[in-house]
Amino acid sequence: MIEVDLIVTGDTVVTMNATYDVYTPGAVAIKGDTIVAVDSAETILATCTAKETVTCPDHVIIPGLVNAHTHVPMTLLRGLNDDLRLDVWLGYLMPVERKFVTPDFVRLGTRLACAEMIRSGITAFADMYYFEDAIADETARIGMRALLGQTILMFPAPDAASYEDAVVNCRRFIEKWNGHTLIQPAVAPHAWYTNTPDLLRTCADLARAFDVPLHTHISETSREVRDCREQNHMEVVPWNEKNGILNTKLLAAHCVHVSHGEMSMLKDSNAGVAHNPTSNLKLSSGVAPVAEMLEIGLNVGIGTDGPASNNDLDMFEEMRLAALLAKIKRNDPTDLPARQTLELATIGGARAMHMGDLTGSLEPGKRADITIVAMSGVHNWPPFQSNADAVYSRLVYAAKSTDVSHVLCNGRWLLRDRVLLTVDEAAAQAEAAIVAQQIDAFVTERESSPFNKLVVLEGVQRQESYEVQVKVRLDDVSAVIEIIENHPAIEITKSTRYRQFDHYFNFGDEDEDAARLRHREDAFVDEKGKSFETRSRLTLLGQTAHEEYDNAVMLYRSRWLAPATHSLRFYREYFAPREEIVVSKQRRRWRILFEDTEFAINLDQLTDPAMSGYFMEVKARTWSRSDAQRKAAMIKNLLALFNVAQDSAERREYVAITSELQRPAREAIGSG
Amino acid sequence: MIEVDLIVTGDTVVTMNATYDVYTPGAVAIKGDTIVAVDSAETILATCTAKETVTCPDHVIIPGLVNAHTHVPMTLLRGLNDDLRLDVWLGYLMPVERKFVTPDFVRLGTRLACAEMIRSGITAFADMYYFEDAIADETARIGMRALLGQTILMFPAPDAASYEDAVVNCRRFIEKWNGHTLIQPAVAPHAWYTNTPDLLRTCADLARAFDVPLHTHISETSREVRDCREQNHMEVVPWNEKNGILNTKLLAAHCVHVSHGEMSMLKDSNAGVAHNPTSNLKLSSGVAPVAEMLEIGLNVGIGTDGPASNNDLDMFEEMRLAALLAKIKRNDPTDLPARQTLELATIGGARAMHMGDLTGSLEPGKRADITIVAMSGVHNWPPFQSNADAVYSRLVYAAKSTDVSHVLCNGRWLLRDRVLLTVDEAAAQAEAAIVAQQIDAFVTERESSPFNKLVVLEGVQRQESYEVQVKVRLDDVSAVIEIIENHPAIEITKSTRYRQFDHYFNFGDEDEDAARLRHREDAFVDEKGKSFETRSRLTLLGQTAHEEYDNAVMLYRSRWLAPATHSLRFYREYFAPREEIVVSKQRRRWRILFEDTEFAINLDQLTDPAMSGYFMEVKARTWSRSDAQRKAAMIKNLLALFNVAQDSAERREYVAITSELQRPAREAIGSG
Repeated sequence: MIEVDLIVTGDTVVTMNATYDVYTPGAVAIKGDTIVAVDSAETILATCTAKETVTCPDHVIIPGLVNAHTHVPMTLLRGLNDDLRLDVWLGYLMPVERKFVTPDFVRLGTRLACAEMIRSGITAFADMYYFEDAIADETARIGMRALLGQTILMFPAPDAASYEDAVVNCRRFIEKWNGHTLIQPAVAPHAWYTNTPDLLRTCADLARAFDVPLHTHISETSREVRDCREQNHMEVVPWNEKNGILNTKLLAAHCVHVSHGEMSMLKDSNAGVAHNPTSNLKLSSGVAPVAEMLEIGLNVGIGTDGPASNNDLDMFEEMRLAALLAKIKRNDPTDLPARQTLELATIGGARAMHMGDLTGSLEPGKRADITIVAMSGVHNWPPFQSNADAVYSRLVYAAKSTDVSHVLCNGRWLLRDRVLLTVDEAAAQAEAAIVAQQIDAFVTERESSPFNKLVVLEGVQRQESYEVQVKVRLDDVSAVIEIIENHPAIEITKSTRYRQFDHYFNFGDEDEDAARLRHREDAFVDEKGKSFETRSRLTLLGQTAHEEYDNAVMLYRSRWLAPATHSLRFYREYFAPREEIVVSKQRRRWRILFEDTEFAINLDQLTDPAMSGYFMEVKARTWSRSDAQRKAAMIKNLLALFNVAQDSAERREYVAITSELQRPAREAIGSG
Repeated sequence: MIEVDLIVTGDTVVTMNATYDVYTPGAVAIKGDTIVAVDSAETILATCTAKETVTCPDHVIIPGLVNAHTHVPMTLLRGLNDDLRLDVWLGYLMPVERKFVTPDFVRLGTRLACAEMIRSGITAFADMYYFEDAIADETARIGMRALLGQTILMFPAPDAASYEDAVVNCRRFIEKWNGHTLIQPAVAPHAWYTNTPDLLRTCADLARAFDVPLHTHISETSREVRDCREQNHMEVVPWNEKNGILNTKLLAAHCVHVSHGEMSMLKDSNAGVAHNPTSNLKLSSGVAPVAEMLEIGLNVGIGTDGPASNNDLDMFEEMRLAALLAKIKRNDPTDLPARQTLELATIGGARAMHMGDLTGSLEPGKRADITIVAMSGVHNWPPFQSNADAVYSRLVYAAKSTDVSHVLCNGRWLLRDRVLLTVDEAAAQAEAAIVAQQIDAFVTERESSPFNKLVVLEGVQRQESYEVQVKVRLDDVSAVIEIIENHPAIEITKSTRYRQFDHYFNFGDEDEDAARLRHREDAFVDEKGKSFETRSRLTLLGQTAHEEYDNAVMLYRSRWLAPATHSLRFYREYFAPREEIVVSKQRRRWRILFEDTEFAINLDQLTDPAMSGYFMEVKARTWSRSDAQRKAAMIKNLLALFNVAQDSAERREYVAITSELQRPAREAIGSG
């Protein structure tokens, strides 16, 4: 007799092993954290003696479900805003995240999410969020298995002021958690379009250095695919491949818009794919070609995505939807049948997370991650036996997450008789209700903030956070133009002339995202000064931090760009600024390469308020603090090239320079 | 103070009235079966005194959900077969229905379904099935509101041997139930393609005569649309309109493939549409254009469809899926937002069922059909207030059917504290388990029946059930041909010549659907006897009943047609018949019109086994028993036209005539 710690028996054991063995009735024998044997109940009871035997009549025993992609702390943002365009939704969400997301916030969100996931039979999940260290701590304490990806973005995040900080955080996170029994740390560059190529390569290097997975979003929307073609002249998967991402243990979330060739590339790199059917519908992203991925042999799992875009963490709903949706993708009702769907939600997800050796099926040697589902509900009645796949059909098409009675993870009971054993659910819910009230108050207060008003109206696009600039007053510019146009160290990539009409709406300083909105109309002119095209844009400028260098100023602030599709009069009425300042100028602008680095040079002549002479501006923008510092240093050399004395530098922005010349501010509201 | 019987109060009352009033906290006052007042809890408690007051903290009170299309007894077939092509699935299901569907079966299925529906907050549903009288009886006893459509089909159904019987049954059903408090009887022609035009018109007349709704399937699949164009040279909605169906209180299920023009026709006729998102995905039918329907102003409800194609009766799942799917139909995440989705699942469904004056919203004067949903589950936490639509978002995107705590229908409690008050669920489940065992045994026994084997291989298409025929032996046919070609009473519509090679596979009589399978190859020849085209088909012939008339035989049997896409050798091995009989002949065939009625005339010369002389056959096929009788009578006049003596009629089929001439039967199995 084999001595074990625990035997669980059920009407049916669904193993999801390679031969899809099903035992009716069946049993699983567990010693410590490990499955020792899986067989018919008769065989197990005849060959094993256990300290405890748990008998589950009318239940099916399945591998713990695997949620292959989520953002667990977003439970605390569930249902805050729905049924919106993606840019509007993100626009609403981002200020809330910046304001509220702290280690305590993510701990609480993780606690709520784990409670919900355990209740619905999930034992393992793949996450991507901020302060992942706190998420790891909470998850390990609760006793779930997880792949946790520390987010890396090119712009500031709640847990990283700069992308350099994000990389440092991620490295520390991996060093701390690598090798933990339950927690698999991972690098999580959010997506190619929120990371520079350099940053993607840094992430891939980091993942390889520690041999940990890399968790990222790939081809979620058709817009992303179009942007990638336009910006990078290639598809999304090749672009990721070019930047090293495929040369890692990759977990790629979404993959809604991928070609056959891209799927093959993912397959060849042994990548895992997390399919998120609810989220992809809710945000109008589309339907991922799952049946085709499976034919190619990709490891595909199913994920709920974050609860703000779902709005729950219910893998039974997700399985059902995955199976249903696949049938209209190719108009074939035999695509993604129930057994294969359960496979995706268990061993498929585990393999996609590069954890297939640990979890995802009931097999000797694997960790004891087990979910036990009551099958006697009236919604799942009667039972049929004549079809061998009936048990899968019942689990996928009729069972509900609330049918889950018991859950074991790593040999430890997390749920028994529907009672959570490792989360104080009531306390977590009470805390969450208080956070929700605070968020409600913040959102209500901000309802009429310029940022929110812009989000609702036009959507917003984030711009580079760092700007390095120097401004010099000149009486004559012919010498400078001569140098720009002829100096061998300068390569001109673009040259334009225009008249520029700026209206600054000032709001005061209560909103860090929206200290000032600039409405800018550029009237492009040809060499004879004749106008041939205009462009109007809105830029929302946050509070500015600045550092002064010998020769330049480094500005650091949030900048949001939106097309200006309405009249200036409309915006004046809509945003109701406290004051409005007008600055108009004539500008010649060059984009140049200097020492392989891009700068912009403006030669400006102020016309309103009028000033004699010229200003020369040298500027560069970047997502990276260290890159900004490097460029600030380079500006010294550029100024030397132009024979401009450093002490002549004007460190103020135009709006400040012109303030003493300024015409009276408009009465803003209702001034017409 | 108004005296009422019952007041229910909740954190929130969502009325779904015309102005979408929401009361937080709110209350509903009920007297008898009727809502007397809906208002803030404070107002109701200040103005009404009640015999009983039920307080539901942490709950939302909503109108009872309306399941706008289902087939409730199919709970007893839930999960029997899934993930199959529609024709294969129907092929499996039909023999089971013919064998098992009785009044007792539908009573039990209704009991199970009502238990499940009440638990998930449904108070009203629209059904279509057989023995609807038994369904009505059971539904009324349980206390749910329902529109119940007695099915009418052109072929035999479990409750009607002929379509004439179906019409009689339906009329009796309406006479019995019309005017009942809870039950609204309806006429339910299954679909245009399972009804002849005459029968559709009969159904429409019946519905108008009693002023009851008509419940039918419209444009569920793209194949249906294609078939309608080919057969009727018009779209599905116009074809229904032409046959009177739109001139009724129409409830049209599915409408997946309808054009803008068809939607407008439905709108103009005040038709209701039942959208069935799960079923439409599961059977690969497609995604109905719900947002467009709503823009046109159609009354749209949401239905679960039958549990054999869903596989449950959960309107929370259905709402969620409806809202999600709409967002990829036009790639717009703002389509079908949560509030509008709840509207479809309540007042929209009620209006689609032409019962909007009775139910679907919480308004004074309406029946007290009320569902009370617990909102405190961890999957639906935390609550937000800042967005006015948050309560709808929570109900549609996060709530589960298992959150339903209490249900009232027509002022009567059906569920309290999750306990069913009018269904003995345990007894129903025990009975259902026994039925499931019987079905399992039947299915297992039939697994290798010729019918099932043909279904799996090629799918089957049902053919007309009635055949009228006369056969006469002639030595010479020139006189007959002369008459066919020249007699003014005969109009030839088609004329062909071919050699016909029939192989009959006999299986014995254990299977009423499959006594004999005929493999027929027709080799079409031109006037010089040169072959230019062949066609091979399988016809599965059920047990034949026949009635003899003076001059003709009326045969009545099930006939299933399938294309023969494999070799004869393959079919011989695959079906393994007990015996095989060969009949070959040369045939000239005319389709003629005689007294505006279509007949076929065959002049046959048997070649294997060879016989001298000719046979003349006069034949007609039809779905209708009375039409068959009419045609049998007409054959007398046709024979007179041909100067053929009635007593020369040969009443046997070829396979019987040739039996004495027959070459030895093949050893069937493995004969190669």
